Amino acid sequence: MDIVSPEGFLYSVAKAQIKYPDRYDLALIYSKKPSQIAGVFTTNQIKAAPVKICMKRIRSGWAQVVVLNSGNANACTGQKGIEDALKITNYLAEKLNTNKQYIFPLSTGVIGMPLPVDRILNALDELIKNLGNAQPIQVAEAIMTTDTFPKLTFRQIKTASPLTILGICKGAGMISPNMATMLCTILTDAKISSDLMNEALRDAVAQSFNSITVDGDMSTNDTVLILANGESNIKIERKTALWKEFKSSLNDLCLELSQMIVRDGEGTTKFVTVIVKGAKTTQDAKRVARAVANSLLVKTAFYGNDPNWGRIIAAVGYSGIPVKEEKTEIYINGICLFQKGLPTMKEEELKKSLIQKEIEVLINLNSGKGQAKIFTTDLSEEYVKINSAYRT
Amino acid sequence: MDIVSPEGFLYSVAKAQIKYPDRYDLALIYSKKPSQIAGVFTTNQIKAAPVKICMKRIRSGWAQVVVLNSGNANACTGQKGIEDALKITNYLAEKLNTNKQYIFPLSTGVIGMPLPVDRILNALDELIKNLGNAQPIQVAEAIMTTDTFPKLTFRQIKTASPLTILGICKGAGMISPNMATMLCTILTDAKISSDLMNEALRDAVAQSFNSITVDGDMSTNDTVLILANGESNIKIERKTALWKEFKSSLNDLCLELSQMIVRDGEGTTKFVTVIVKGAKTTQDAKRVARAVANSLLVKTAFYGNDPNWGRIIAAVGYSGIPVKEEKTEIYINGICLFQKGLPTMKEEELKKSLIQKEIEVLINLNSGKGQAKIFTTDLSEEYVKINSAYRT
Repeated sequence: MDIVSPEGFLYSVAKAQIKYPDRYDLALIYSKKPSQIAGVFTTNQIKAAPVKICMKRIRSGWAQVVVLNSGNANACTGQKGIEDALKITNYLAEKLNTNKQYIFPLSTGVIGMPLPVDRILNALDELIKNLGNAQPIQVAEAIMTTDTFPKLTFRQIKTASPLTILGICKGAGMISPNMATMLCTILTDAKISSDLMNEALRDAVAQSFNSITVDGDMSTNDTVLILANGESNIKIERKTALWKEFKSSLNDLCLELSQMIVRDGEGTTKFVTVIVKGAKTTQDAKRVARAVANSLLVKTAFYGNDPNWGRIIAAVGYSGIPVKEEKTEIYINGICLFQKGLPTMKEEELKKSLIQKEIEVLINLNSGKGQAKIFTTDLSEEYVKINSAYRT
Repeated sequence: MDIVSPEGFLYSVAKAQIKYPDRYDLALIYSKKPSQIAGVFTTNQIKAAPVKICMKRIRSGWAQVVVLNSGNANACTGQKGIEDALKITNYLAEKLNTNKQYIFPLSTGVIGMPLPVDRILNALDELIKNLGNAQPIQVAEAIMTTDTFPKLTFRQIKTASPLTILGICKGAGMISPNMATMLCTILTDAKISSDLMNEALRDAVAQSFNSITVDGDMSTNDTVLILANGESNIKIERKTALWKEFKSSLNDLCLELSQMIVRDGEGTTKFVTVIVKGAKTTQDAKRVARAVANSLLVKTAFYGNDPNWGRIIAAVGYSGIPVKEEKTEIYINGICLFQKGLPTMKEEELKKSLIQKEIEVLINLNSGKGQAKIFTTDLSEEYVKINSAYRT
């Protein structure tokens, strides 16, 4: 299916030689009109320079340009990192004749290396000149790091004129609640206030980007932005059918993108959904789901097609919430493996289905109504290979 | 150096075919006299049957026999698991003519498989008959699972007659605070009350077994026991020089054993010490140390000899405590890599020393007096290989 862009956004990409000599590593998204913007950022206490800048600028609720680079995260780069990012955004503001505060920088890549700002500045004129010559998929490609495929999708809502929501993101490792080394830019031609978008985005992120984990590491750069330029002239207001439909489409879009990230988890061979039911609270359910999803022993067992529910229940037990062994039930791919404090001895039956790429773990604590769902991966030798060789 | 056993303890081992047809997998430790006992157990909410039994029996403060097996953890085995363990301990009590409550069972191995209790019962007569024919190292060998070497050591305190403390343990994976899939039995011929031992043991464990992590997974079976049979006739009382010396020897012994476990971490190529200083509280320092020590990205970087301090500071940032980027300093093997919010660009200098097997990470948060130290490993492809193939 061809990707449809919302009206009024232009794209361009360039090779700025940020880390590699010959790949697209710089991208520009330009809205013809100033857009309303909302965003969600990493909760890591160590935040990259571009994150700090975006968090400040987003308060005005307005944006017009997003400039994205791969190859360098511009994180742990001190005041110089801020200045480097500002050089780029100020140059763009001047050349594109827009308010400095409307330019949002997003970076991904290695931490703690100075941004090669001169090489990026050198590429900006070409980037501006080429605005409109690139497609969204090229933007998705330019921000890939260890990603093996570009990640983008869109939703359309049928109204008087079509209303489109497009999401472009990257992320393949260091993926954990909350969010990941992930950048995501969502664009829409809806006419919607930043306040409303903020509300919708927070909901959508909680169920998608904040419900995935690959390796339990949370990045310094995680950013999700949504820009609405109003080009469709379809206005979205609270408590209307359209507002509901917009929220549901946005949820759906974020869920699809977040699952793409998990599927592209470094060295991944399985897509694992961990569902926890019957916890006292939602918070408790999340803790259990995360403990299981982040357990190295659980992840390596899935890699080995081993229905090792013992490792799952051990992770449930150390998750930090009170658990009753005799009430806990564990299912893998619908087959009950542990119930009433005892193994059901159905592992042989399960083994065949474990060879599939999709695995569903259901843990029922039978102690309340709290539920949570989290998406994760197995852990392979390939993950170790990728991450021990990522820089050197 | 030859291992010295404290006076009055006898050992024996047997092949009970618990998991494998032809290896020593069952061991007996017998004290000629009833001993005072203290213990520390897993905080996992899911506890193995032998742990439940030991936790109950330890309240009396007395013990005479420890029976240990590898190959099966007798965890998640319900009421049957308890009954199986009791069959074994009751049989031993009868044959050894001692109080049922004085027999302590310890199990390690696969979770959720019924204990092959008949095969173990069949081996008990031989085990009893051979008491005194085995050395402590054979007990250490009998309880190995994925361990690649037996783990035991001893300390002696010079008094009128020699006072000996011997520690025998196992553990190689699923190693995390607090404790690990680890069993440890400490024996001494000191004359000391269970209350005093309890105090000394808690101190020692906090700085040793509770300060190590291999993969962040905490087991259902972790147990540390200390038995004192008084055979040396050297009495230890609180607030004496001997009490101090006993505590210090016990600390030292536990530290050595816990470091053996880390060094034998599954697929490990590095021994990593993570030190956190300058945190607001000890608790904060521990949280940071654990976040760094359990980070897959940090561990794989060390495996790849990559001085990737960016991953370290990212882990510091998501550890959950407030962190000031500009105050945080990161040192690896004594070389400062990050200071005043900026990289020091000394990575080339460091690279040579990273090839060593020993790595020390020092993180100074410069925000208080809280300190913590934790011992961990790198993460290799071999770890994944071992743990994806452990059962199947």
